[in-house]
Amino acid sequence: MMALEGKKLGLSFIILDPQPNCPAASVVDQQIIASFYDKDKIKELAELTDIITYEFEHIDAEVLIQLAKDGYKIYPSPYTLKIIQDKYHQKEFLKNHQIPLPDFRPINTLEDLRGAALEIGLPLILKSRRGGYDGKGNFLIRDEGQMTEAYKHLKGERENDLMVEAFVDFNMEVSAIVARSTEGQTAIYPLSENHHKNNILFTTLVPARISKKIENKAKETALKVMELLEGVGVFCIEMFVDAKDEILINEIAPRVHNSGHYSMEGCSTSQFYQHIRGILGLPLGSTDLIKPSVMMNLLGEDKSSGRARVVGYEDLMKTPEAYLHFYGKTETKPHRKMGHFTVLNDDLEKGLRIATDLKGKIKVIAEEDV
Amino acid sequence: MMALEGKKLGLSFIILDPQPNCPAASVVDQQIIASFYDKDKIKELAELTDIITYEFEHIDAEVLIQLAKDGYKIYPSPYTLKIIQDKYHQKEFLKNHQIPLPDFRPINTLEDLRGAALEIGLPLILKSRRGGYDGKGNFLIRDEGQMTEAYKHLKGERENDLMVEAFVDFNMEVSAIVARSTEGQTAIYPLSENHHKNNILFTTLVPARISKKIENKAKETALKVMELLEGVGVFCIEMFVDAKDEILINEIAPRVHNSGHYSMEGCSTSQFYQHIRGILGLPLGSTDLIKPSVMMNLLGEDKSSGRARVVGYEDLMKTPEAYLHFYGKTETKPHRKMGHFTVLNDDLEKGLRIATDLKGKIKVIAEEDV
Repeated sequence: MMALEGKKLGLSFIILDPQPNCPAASVVDQQIIASFYDKDKIKELAELTDIITYEFEHIDAEVLIQLAKDGYKIYPSPYTLKIIQDKYHQKEFLKNHQIPLPDFRPINTLEDLRGAALEIGLPLILKSRRGGYDGKGNFLIRDEGQMTEAYKHLKGERENDLMVEAFVDFNMEVSAIVARSTEGQTAIYPLSENHHKNNILFTTLVPARISKKIENKAKETALKVMELLEGVGVFCIEMFVDAKDEILINEIAPRVHNSGHYSMEGCSTSQFYQHIRGILGLPLGSTDLIKPSVMMNLLGEDKSSGRARVVGYEDLMKTPEAYLHFYGKTETKPHRKMGHFTVLNDDLEKGLRIATDLKGKIKVIAEEDV
Repeated sequence: MMALEGKKLGLSFIILDPQPNCPAASVVDQQIIASFYDKDKIKELAELTDIITYEFEHIDAEVLIQLAKDGYKIYPSPYTLKIIQDKYHQKEFLKNHQIPLPDFRPINTLEDLRGAALEIGLPLILKSRRGGYDGKGNFLIRDEGQMTEAYKHLKGERENDLMVEAFVDFNMEVSAIVARSTEGQTAIYPLSENHHKNNILFTTLVPARISKKIENKAKETALKVMELLEGVGVFCIEMFVDAKDEILINEIAPRVHNSGHYSMEGCSTSQFYQHIRGILGLPLGSTDLIKPSVMMNLLGEDKSSGRARVVGYEDLMKTPEAYLHFYGKTETKPHRKMGHFTVLNDDLEKGLRIATDLKGKIKVIAEEDV
């Protein structure tokens, strides 16, 4: 989606991705087929391009740091990436700068976990410090009996690389898409109200249905975080609004984000175009909301795996200001993000009803299940 | 631009274009480098794809007709293309169906031209029947003394392939972007008001500043033409509004058109996406105007040829709802279409002022002239 925006400006792209013929490969000038940890190939990419960026944070920050030292332009800065990549370091960094966030502890042993439960109280979320996404690498511990299970489960996955965090019984989860350019200019999008199912983003509503006061507080916090991290390009700052209407940082993604997909049609400047502007040092574009927007993800249906097909899209295509995106991933499997759609409407609640109705009809299934 | 829209649906594209690394090549899955008249390569394209379409009418219709006979899907129909491709046949076809258009005659000799001048009167436009665009292949004859010059000029270019047409002293030139699907569904966009400079489209304003009555008449005519031609995909029907507020067909393009570029941001469904829907037999999308739109072309500056650079784009990038497109053509030369921009504004006149101001600042010049 970033390349599609960049192509409107006639830019050239080379991507590095381990999967031959991945969706991005078909819209860029060249693909380097390599692991995100392949030092030589990442160096090759740096040599072939003017600027490197990434839309995936689980890459080797040390390799990027070495390249940055050698004078290659990499945005966001690999130093910023290094802080964010390890969730414990991320949270420590925020805490040191007085940014409000749920209480947390590093966990190296089962004893650490028991100690944290005493200090913070249950429920707790045990998390892998690196590499998690869409709830993978998280374990919600509601009672003491689950501690051993949680520890074994995550420790089995990732050696000595855990932390816990207080569970926030939030009123709402919101996110801010924030942009900052190499010139230090910042811009922030209207807040997204996010709803998850099975830990995967299901719906984003924009603007988030919160008071102006909370909105302003959340935006201030997000902008402050962006400045502290010296972020360049587009970041997503996920936040909780808790029962006391306090803002707590949940997590930071140093990249364009699913909760900002609505901006493709909902805003003057999409998050993808904004990211490109930011890393190229171009003036940032307007983040004005054109109309209230409802984004819904299209996940692979349960119990259906195989060559992907979309069915039931007809009504969506007939609906004015309903925009379908299908990512061109060849294979569908349960819960895989296969596409999304956005409905714009002057009345957000009406937009939500339209989107909910359309969502009930459209499905991504395997060809053999059509 | 068609591929960029199709990629949002995850479609695959193979293009045939004679120029290696042409702008489209970098956003599609594969390029066949071949002339638009290369029968074997066009057949190869047909074999590799599910559907063939074109966005350029100067191709060999006979080759496409043979492929259609062999069962390959080609939209718009090559029979339609054949009628449109030869401007004289196009106009004869329209005349036979009682569609209003300026008086015209075929011209095979200088004598024919003198005869037509007597019958129709001056001024006349002498035209190549095939292959013209942006005023190329046209010669406006204002007085008798220009006849030999005009005839020699165009005859020199294209052997025995001329026609004349009465010059219409129009109040306005408008165009209608019309879509028709393989299922026979039709949709029409708001009328574009077009202004040219040196015979090249300079500005499109939408909606055209004409009365509802004329608008309806023009739309009816355009839809009728689309049905008569059994068009599939998106066509552009260019029309004159003459001094008596009559609608006269100017020319038909069996493809997406520069005067429909505004639809990328100005309408719910861009002309490119609509074309894809039409040829795939998908439901056509809404053609509702989101906001009044002003599109201006960015042509290569006079006296500047070389590696293309855009300068003075900063204000455009800072303006909300101003959208820059730069086509990624490597070389600029005078009057070459290098990009365009569109300004959306609730007030069309205000949008025009904003666009005019921005147009005064932005330029496409050769790198060495920066």
